[in-house]
Amino acid sequence: MKPGAIKGFPEWLPEEEQVQQNLIDAIRRSFELHGFGPIHTRAVEPMETLLSKGETDKEIYTLRRYQGDPDDGGSLGLHYDLTVPLARYVTEHHGRLVFPFRRHQIQSAWRGERPQLGRYREFIQADADIVGEGSLPARYDAEMVALLARTLDTLPVPPVRVQVNNRKILQGFYLGLGVQDVTGALRCIDKLAKIGVDGVLAGLQAAGLTAAQAGACVALAQLGDDLQDLESVRALGVSHPLLEEGLAELAETLRYCRQQRLRTEVVAALHVARGFDYYTGTVVEGVLRDNPNLGSVCSGGRYENLASAGRTKLPGMGISIGISRIMGFLAHLGVLKPERRSPAEVLVAVHNEDTRHISDEIARDLRARDIACLVSDTSAPYSKQIKVAVRLGIRHVWFPGMDGKSSEVRDLDAGTQASADPATWDPGTSTKATSWD
Amino acid sequence: MKPGAIKGFPEWLPEEEQVQQNLIDAIRRSFELHGFGPIHTRAVEPMETLLSKGETDKEIYTLRRYQGDPDDGGSLGLHYDLTVPLARYVTEHHGRLVFPFRRHQIQSAWRGERPQLGRYREFIQADADIVGEGSLPARYDAEMVALLARTLDTLPVPPVRVQVNNRKILQGFYLGLGVQDVTGALRCIDKLAKIGVDGVLAGLQAAGLTAAQAGACVALAQLGDDLQDLESVRALGVSHPLLEEGLAELAETLRYCRQQRLRTEVVAALHVARGFDYYTGTVVEGVLRDNPNLGSVCSGGRYENLASAGRTKLPGMGISIGISRIMGFLAHLGVLKPERRSPAEVLVAVHNEDTRHISDEIARDLRARDIACLVSDTSAPYSKQIKVAVRLGIRHVWFPGMDGKSSEVRDLDAGTQASADPATWDPGTSTKATSWD
Repeated sequence: MKPGAIKGFPEWLPEEEQVQQNLIDAIRRSFELHGFGPIHTRAVEPMETLLSKGETDKEIYTLRRYQGDPDDGGSLGLHYDLTVPLARYVTEHHGRLVFPFRRHQIQSAWRGERPQLGRYREFIQADADIVGEGSLPARYDAEMVALLARTLDTLPVPPVRVQVNNRKILQGFYLGLGVQDVTGALRCIDKLAKIGVDGVLAGLQAAGLTAAQAGACVALAQLGDDLQDLESVRALGVSHPLLEEGLAELAETLRYCRQQRLRTEVVAALHVARGFDYYTGTVVEGVLRDNPNLGSVCSGGRYENLASAGRTKLPGMGISIGISRIMGFLAHLGVLKPERRSPAEVLVAVHNEDTRHISDEIARDLRARDIACLVSDTSAPYSKQIKVAVRLGIRHVWFPGMDGKSSEVRDLDAGTQASADPATWDPGTSTKATSWD
Repeated sequence: MKPGAIKGFPEWLPEEEQVQQNLIDAIRRSFELHGFGPIHTRAVEPMETLLSKGETDKEIYTLRRYQGDPDDGGSLGLHYDLTVPLARYVTEHHGRLVFPFRRHQIQSAWRGERPQLGRYREFIQADADIVGEGSLPARYDAEMVALLARTLDTLPVPPVRVQVNNRKILQGFYLGLGVQDVTGALRCIDKLAKIGVDGVLAGLQAAGLTAAQAGACVALAQLGDDLQDLESVRALGVSHPLLEEGLAELAETLRYCRQQRLRTEVVAALHVARGFDYYTGTVVEGVLRDNPNLGSVCSGGRYENLASAGRTKLPGMGISIGISRIMGFLAHLGVLKPERRSPAEVLVAVHNEDTRHISDEIARDLRARDIACLVSDTSAPYSKQIKVAVRLGIRHVWFPGMDGKSSEVRDLDAGTQASADPATWDPGTSTKATSWD
């Protein structure tokens, strides 16, 4: 067996994985608090489903059975996001769901892209979406952006800036300008943060825009940050009903978020377009406030036409938090603070192998009271057993009395030792401190 | 987009998925209580790793990038269990782990087998393993079997019978009988429950055993159930040092489990061999006590030689609970009791759209106190809002006072209504009842 890392497929040590688990648990709890229940979709979709969104640049992985007929494979691929599977799920189970349908989903997805910092071939993301039946009022866009910010509020990560835009603003503006290839222009503008003004101007003109049109598009993208700037959109002198609609929706989202007393910043950012073709209105992405150039750590948007059941449209609005990406950035920035290596609150020492059953019984009593513990693997001198507790990050060591009763517990952090009873002992909350202050 | 189920890739409705989540949470908590921390391995391994155990009958799925060079793929496959990835992980990270290394891992795995009841092509399993450095005393076999039974004790599933065997018993017995193809005989005996005595007798003779040898093998496999029967093994008149070693280890495991006051039955079952070639001693599998013929819902075993670091052996003992399989069996038996469709404890009603912000604020206050709630999607008459709560399985409906204070809450189950304050209201524990009585 030849071990080794595979580029683009991140893995963590146990004390790091615990940080990832804490992130997942906090996100899941926030989604539940807002009434979003869980679903879990299969990792695979028919290739025609995955390709039907024209997202072939997502570098889909196809599956083949090793011993199967070569023609047997090729029809299934690994999903590259959790939104396309959701759209298939709500269509498939339409009659058995309650609409508007709220779900959260925390799973891996796969893209065969070139790996780089924060961009992986296998990654975990945490999504929450709401899907309406027939229609979904615009106020849900505001609520979902607020849910994203509220969830980020609870996470042990550096401050995130949530940047909101509305594709209707961009599309309306481009239409008002007389641009023919609106989709091409959108894709080009989305690269502004990555390739800069000159690159975008060149790209827009390559897409058929005049220099004046391209300049206006870039001027629009460079506005942002507060409601004031939405007025300055009108000052650019372009008008279109879709532009007005987008401006109203964006203003409403920003207003709503301002009311929510969020710690996470929510701002307008007219350069944000997002890569997925299925977005039709609000689009959102979050970056680390102090390291925006690393790229987005969360995203989302409104998709009006992704799913339907018969003639009934099933429009949705979703948000997605990139768990693997956040982990990658935390590690890159040197601020990934590992948890203790063992979930145990206490190591129950073993006096000698003949009395191991006494330690086992103490452990059983503690576990029955929901206190995680580990019975020492060795009955070596207590000094050695204490060293193991230190290595594992376990704060307390339990020294069993040989009568099964008169035990003592040492708090390795406080340097104190006191008598303790498995029926009443409390490890305290100090050992459950989060990994971020 | 063409929706539809894919055979062998199970998915659940939200209220069923919540049952699956509850199972996963309970298993994870049990593993944590025993000092097993989390790891998460990538879904893929190099094909040479997956094939190196000779497990080609596991029907591995290989990956290919849709747009990639045809020669680019084929080197990665989806893992078919979580033990082979663990062996690779402990080898790769050997220097950074504390041994004996305890980890739990709850993930999907994939096998391209023919789908049938409880056998899926994509399935979730929950594993806990302990891996030693150099050696791992036999008492850990007993501890891991007890951990399996203890964990099953806490799950909302029908009673499971945990059946234990030790491959050394079978191997020693076969060697004592003079059987040449011990591995072939093992594989054949493992099918006893599936194909019956005649099928196994024929298979053993096809593998080169005499009729007398085959008969003795079947006689051994049919013993079991309590310590008494381990004596009856010796009564079969075969002797071999490996047989004695296996009998001693099995007796020790049964003795230890008996001491643990487990609710889940743990019995000897000499027909259990398990399919994986990597098992070298203790093997275990659990079946639903009242429906044993459905097949195993959990399994595990000792693997002495799966992993190593340089010249240091890294022997392990692990257990695995088949989450997808349990879900499939519960559904098949008609005892999958769906949870409520929404995680919300309370639906906050909306008087009219102009006062929706009052309901929003109540919800925010409740969520700040870790109470999950949903603000009504509609401001239709309260009778209609109550109907939505009923459909979603939400027990309480909150009627906001228009001054933002004098609210009342109706308990739909109890049929009572009382004034309530978001700062102090407690939904009670009754709504958190488990799905199994």
